[in-house]
Amino acid sequence: MRARHKPWADDYLKENADIVDQTPTDRKGNWSSAFSNSQPIHLEIGTGKGQFVCGMAKQFPETNFIGMEVVKSIIVSAVEKVNETDCENIRLINENAEDLLEIFKPGEIDTIYLNFSDPWPKNRHEKRRLTYRTFLESYKTILKENGKLVLKTDNQGLFEYSLVSFSQFGCRLEEVSLDLHAMEDPTNIMTEYEEKFSAKGQPIYRAVVTFT
Amino acid sequence: MRARHKPWADDYLKENADIVDQTPTDRKGNWSSAFSNSQPIHLEIGTGKGQFVCGMAKQFPETNFIGMEVVKSIIVSAVEKVNETDCENIRLINENAEDLLEIFKPGEIDTIYLNFSDPWPKNRHEKRRLTYRTFLESYKTILKENGKLVLKTDNQGLFEYSLVSFSQFGCRLEEVSLDLHAMEDPTNIMTEYEEKFSAKGQPIYRAVVTFT
Repeated sequence: MRARHKPWADDYLKENADIVDQTPTDRKGNWSSAFSNSQPIHLEIGTGKGQFVCGMAKQFPETNFIGMEVVKSIIVSAVEKVNETDCENIRLINENAEDLLEIFKPGEIDTIYLNFSDPWPKNRHEKRRLTYRTFLESYKTILKENGKLVLKTDNQGLFEYSLVSFSQFGCRLEEVSLDLHAMEDPTNIMTEYEEKFSAKGQPIYRAVVTFT
Repeated sequence: MRARHKPWADDYLKENADIVDQTPTDRKGNWSSAFSNSQPIHLEIGTGKGQFVCGMAKQFPETNFIGMEVVKSIIVSAVEKVNETDCENIRLINENAEDLLEIFKPGEIDTIYLNFSDPWPKNRHEKRRLTYRTFLESYKTILKENGKLVLKTDNQGLFEYSLVSFSQFGCRLEEVSLDLHAMEDPTNIMTEYEEKFSAKGQPIYRAVVTFT
């Protein structure tokens, strides 16, 4: 996702410190305190403009959601959306997926969502794909036992790659859909991107895996 | 695949005993003798009218191929095709996939192909799908160590089901394609069904798994 540079973004994120945690590494092992309750915590990696995390938070008030987005000029849109949504169970962090282990303690997360992640189609960029084995290793660490990873994408290459990567890492595939919208799952919350692409008739793929 | 009843089929198969092995259970552990050489043996389960097995046998003369087809009125067409193909490295058997362990010794097969198998879409017929775990168990037994199973289908439901079934059985996914023909793999031999359906623009799915 591309976004214009927003020089005011830094200040904006600081002003919204109630939504955007400013020192997420200090929360490690103690994320429940950010929500002042002990509800399970779901994490979206690459939360973009926040439509998914906000929709989920509304639909599942008994779950806490953390949206992680590395791009400052994009996360500001997510902050606006969280403000509009008026849900107590969402926090955002402006961090990189490579630093997951510095932000979360082993077993602290219940479910991880990867939505329409960058496919990094070139072979030499394989290690940047969010389903590359080093990432799977950190997901396994921060997820509680039997925690789930849910991947949605419209990118055929990334989905094929991810299924093989999951298998070779030893994940257990719980569910796979090659045309999610044909299932008409009423609990499926769409991202902005998903709305746009599925409207064009593009199939959306979804896989749910657990780590054993 | 439906086919008209052919009352002459029994006699026809017997007349072609050089192609259609009449007592396959007697070959158990000794299939190399049917080919009079020790080349690796690949097995297609549900060989239909034989286009795939004949195409493969032509393309890979240093591999022996066995085509298994339970429907008599269909296997007769495969016999005709083998006769036309004039390859020494094909045998057919008129048998049911449920009897694999009576026909092959553990480790006797190198690669198994499932091409456009009946999807058995109803839940209550799950056990009949050729990627149900009891079948995977027999494939694992008759395949040599690191032997492969190659699944091709245009049926979305069967493919989704099979990926999950493979994972839960503990197979290792080596390769997955969600649009085989877009890859333009020159070694891909098409079945009759595949030719017809891919011409309509239907994507063909393929998975390759190993048993560990």
